[in-house]
Amino acid sequence: MKYCMKCGNELTVRVPDGDDRSRYVCQACGTVHYSNPKMVVGTIPVYQDRILICRRAIEPRYGLWTLPAGFMENEETVEAGAKRETLEEAGAELDTLAPFAMFSLPFVSQVYLMFRARLSAPNFAAGHESLEVALVPESDIPWDEIAFPVIEETLRLFFADRQKGTFGFHSGMINRRI
Amino acid sequence: MKYCMKCGNELTVRVPDGDDRSRYVCQACGTVHYSNPKMVVGTIPVYQDRILICRRAIEPRYGLWTLPAGFMENEETVEAGAKRETLEEAGAELDTLAPFAMFSLPFVSQVYLMFRARLSAPNFAAGHESLEVALVPESDIPWDEIAFPVIEETLRLFFADRQKGTFGFHSGMINRRI
Repeated sequence: MKYCMKCGNELTVRVPDGDDRSRYVCQACGTVHYSNPKMVVGTIPVYQDRILICRRAIEPRYGLWTLPAGFMENEETVEAGAKRETLEEAGAELDTLAPFAMFSLPFVSQVYLMFRARLSAPNFAAGHESLEVALVPESDIPWDEIAFPVIEETLRLFFADRQKGTFGFHSGMINRRI
Repeated sequence: MKYCMKCGNELTVRVPDGDDRSRYVCQACGTVHYSNPKMVVGTIPVYQDRILICRRAIEPRYGLWTLPAGFMENEETVEAGAKRETLEEAGAELDTLAPFAMFSLPFVSQVYLMFRARLSAPNFAAGHESLEVALVPESDIPWDEIAFPVIEETLRLFFADRQKGTFGFHSGMINRRI
């Protein structure tokens, strides 16, 4: 970040008046450029005893498996974002969503919000960010080929709760890089 | 948003290749400037049967009552952000936090994440964004002077759950402006 988005002049890094941390501030017009964590919204799509997973067609982690998830967009709700990502990446429609897990990833300034979701029907298709999409039982989860620690942790919590017969809402932190 | 943060040249609004919505894109260097929802993290600080509320010393809604809450910062967890805001605005230390409610506010592209929290001791003091801080029972909540609909909704859900004797995790949408 080098230039002011408002006036185009150079930015400097300093603590603005009344603030307590360094920000990018325009030397000419004084505009403060804040940077905040981004939310990633996604789902664990369930059909009977199976769940829907996607094999990534994009970097990072091309070719590895993940759950449908992506950056939340402006002017949508978390649920709408999670449904949109599931439709885009897995071609699947969901009927019910329940908040399941929230993970802070402070090393990349992201927060993941994952929902349990029920597939309306066993219909799905790889979107352009997926090589393939599969509806698999727990025994077929490719644990050694999961793209991200946050997705592995989501799946482990999901199967543990399902085993117990009761789903909670989980909050945690992931601080491993890939 | 008018100038590229990276090279200082003018931005244009268009759908980048491989994307499906309009973004601010630099005409010179091609950098795409994404804008995503911001997270607000806050708490319902509880001490015995009382909760801690703050009277705002800043706009918007100067002079009205709220719960400690503010924008999450980069490189922190949601829990750390909620604790930081409670310390900054209400001078209060918390010992336990439990996720309580998440609200999407699509009209301002924000997501609120509110935690139930226990005050370590009945110690508090107004920070520079608060005129005063008060530890009050439910009967003393100034319902007609609550700063924001999302805070009013959080308080209503909290007292309803407390009445039932069991706290859930709630997800909802607020689409009323003040």
